[in-house]
Amino acid sequence: MKSRKGDASPMPQASRGRRDFLTQGAALVTGAASAGIAAGASAQGLAGQPWERVYGAGFTGYGQPSRFEQPVMRYLAKPYGDLAPGSGVALSPIERLEGIITPSGLHNDRSHSGTPDIDPKQHQLLLHGLVARPLTFSVDALLAYPMTSRIHFLECSGNSNRNLAPQPAQVPAGFLHGNIACSEWTGVPLRTLLEEAGLQPQAKWILAEGADSAHMSRSIPLEKALDDALIALYQNGERLRPEQGYPVRLLLPGWEGNMNVKWLRRIKATEEPTYTKDETSKYTDLQPDGRALQFTFEMGVKSVITKPSSTMKLPRTGFYEISGIAWSGAGRIRRVEVSTDGGATWADAVLHGEERPKALVRFRFPWEWSGKEAVLQSRATDEKGQVQPARKVWLAQYSPGNTYHNNSIASWSVGTDGSVKNVYV
Amino acid sequence: MKSRKGDASPMPQASRGRRDFLTQGAALVTGAASAGIAAGASAQGLAGQPWERVYGAGFTGYGQPSRFEQPVMRYLAKPYGDLAPGSGVALSPIERLEGIITPSGLHNDRSHSGTPDIDPKQHQLLLHGLVARPLTFSVDALLAYPMTSRIHFLECSGNSNRNLAPQPAQVPAGFLHGNIACSEWTGVPLRTLLEEAGLQPQAKWILAEGADSAHMSRSIPLEKALDDALIALYQNGERLRPEQGYPVRLLLPGWEGNMNVKWLRRIKATEEPTYTKDETSKYTDLQPDGRALQFTFEMGVKSVITKPSSTMKLPRTGFYEISGIAWSGAGRIRRVEVSTDGGATWADAVLHGEERPKALVRFRFPWEWSGKEAVLQSRATDEKGQVQPARKVWLAQYSPGNTYHNNSIASWSVGTDGSVKNVYV
Repeated sequence: MKSRKGDASPMPQASRGRRDFLTQGAALVTGAASAGIAAGASAQGLAGQPWERVYGAGFTGYGQPSRFEQPVMRYLAKPYGDLAPGSGVALSPIERLEGIITPSGLHNDRSHSGTPDIDPKQHQLLLHGLVARPLTFSVDALLAYPMTSRIHFLECSGNSNRNLAPQPAQVPAGFLHGNIACSEWTGVPLRTLLEEAGLQPQAKWILAEGADSAHMSRSIPLEKALDDALIALYQNGERLRPEQGYPVRLLLPGWEGNMNVKWLRRIKATEEPTYTKDETSKYTDLQPDGRALQFTFEMGVKSVITKPSSTMKLPRTGFYEISGIAWSGAGRIRRVEVSTDGGATWADAVLHGEERPKALVRFRFPWEWSGKEAVLQSRATDEKGQVQPARKVWLAQYSPGNTYHNNSIASWSVGTDGSVKNVYV
Repeated sequence: MKSRKGDASPMPQASRGRRDFLTQGAALVTGAASAGIAAGASAQGLAGQPWERVYGAGFTGYGQPSRFEQPVMRYLAKPYGDLAPGSGVALSPIERLEGIITPSGLHNDRSHSGTPDIDPKQHQLLLHGLVARPLTFSVDALLAYPMTSRIHFLECSGNSNRNLAPQPAQVPAGFLHGNIACSEWTGVPLRTLLEEAGLQPQAKWILAEGADSAHMSRSIPLEKALDDALIALYQNGERLRPEQGYPVRLLLPGWEGNMNVKWLRRIKATEEPTYTKDETSKYTDLQPDGRALQFTFEMGVKSVITKPSSTMKLPRTGFYEISGIAWSGAGRIRRVEVSTDGGATWADAVLHGEERPKALVRFRFPWEWSGKEAVLQSRATDEKGQVQPARKVWLAQYSPGNTYHNNSIASWSVGTDGSVKNVYV
């Protein structure tokens, strides 16, 4: 446990036991009379609501969220507007979500040429190139292979690039950092199919190509393809959603989003990278000397506080649970620290889900807001010892024109009126 | 590893290593030419599909499954038909799902009087009875409490009761055994709220009551309420679905479904059980002597093979992966065995997710179908050493009129024509 300095406010430590937790609970009561968290009551005071007096709605074959939750939607960024309504990104409203599973309807969606309407009976996957036996797989054939299930995040390498603008945008956290989601994926290990086709010794890379009209394609080192790559067929229990690559996508756990090729139609074993348009014109990292660094595959260690976050307003002083998500392309999250004073002091948050590699972790941290100005930050450390960098440290690594792989610490300021703003610290 | 007797067919063991797995992959190739699992191919043979030539669909705020997956829906059983379209059950199509997370749209739904249309701004939870301070909580107040996230199954205690009919129904597995689902739930430990209200020493039970027009209510031992009970607010990342209790439900991990009171409006601390209509007229277990056993809270250890399963047809001989789900209300699943000869011999399946207590586990088992008749069964064992009982053993425990807590072994026969049928063994 880390000691806190320079902060006199009561701050329960993350590792506090049940006894401390109950004390915290009692603190909630103390504040209740003025803050309205819970109110004194009696059974006589329990209103009989209209919906208790009428027979409810009938069953449905496929359920939907409550009509009261309809404002919870993905944030759309379409740089070409209605000229290309499927080019751009749909970001997950991470500030409205909890836990670590992203509902499939709110999964982030980066697309270059819209979502194709694929008939699974017609779709095929071709495996060719430096193999002994070129093979094609129908979707039904893929469904007959041995499968495995794993929970993994998917982050676009352009996530958080909006926070590289000169001024911090005052938009919800999801609109800034929501190009990330996490699902349970089920599919066939890519290794199985490659072994079946019989790799030739000179094969060192594969090319993966999508069936969208842009034929989005990326080069992937064979080592990754033989490690934990999946031919994903199911997402959160059901078949993939169309915008996640229905009927089949490549899943490269922990690697940048667009390498996880959607609508997968072709895998070619090659000796060298193919240098496709999607890995030369885009998805390279501009260095300070003006050169572009190619092939930053693994997503960096990262975290973001989702609650409270920008555009929210704290209604009162007193107890708040700070909640957020953390992840690393390198493996497991080992630690998330939270600062409420702009990085002067840090303390450990409680983690949920940290046993899973390359998956979202939920962190939670108790905070007593005194009513003074505060700056909230989170800093993740992964099992490889990598630590999420400060914004200034991250910026110094790249040219100002670089828009990828921004895993720097995000900061929210809290004003004396309770308003929460996006700030650069 | 268990040895197999009386079965000459090649049967890879569950604990086989990567080398064995690759051998299995090679076996797939061997069968490919005749079975069409994968077909030889060249790049020239890759058809350019219509969807590759047109710009795809634009982004959506909240995504939906592919139109080609629309047949994947819950199975509805409405004993009163359109007179009471929300009374009965919507069963999860477990045979169409994979992994362990159930998509919220396909979660099982048992309801007594339909789904109320609750405005979360108007809904309140009252906590009263044998407490020092009766409290009411708005939904916003509940959302301000410290939360926790856990993956748990929910099974109706009436699940699989259709398999108690005199003749085995030839319907999909979900229509028989789909009153089960598994989600990541996030919410406030009930213990926090009870401690805040201050329990009086004589409090030994709580009553939990829903805001549906039936005011569904159950009595729950205080020990469970103080253990792992959650006031659930989120399901699979987003707020609860209406048919799962929006905006707030009680979650009692591992206990029979209807105790997990949906649309929770009231918790009352009591000295004795309340003996509500929902725990006296229903949800009791008829014993052989005609008496009704009250309060079987914990759901028994259980498993079911979802693939292949009844009404499916195997298209060819050769390799199949047998896949299914297992769970126990007592904690973790320790082992799932599979038999392909009607219980004469058993071998261990590979488990996924077995580290989580009171959650679905996915089991998988490689099977080479020779074309002969077979009977497929699975048998789960939990960490308490409880073993899923054979059908005859289970039946002997109860009166023929009992319809709850059927956790007996389910059996699928495979005919020489590949047709899979529900059978009583």
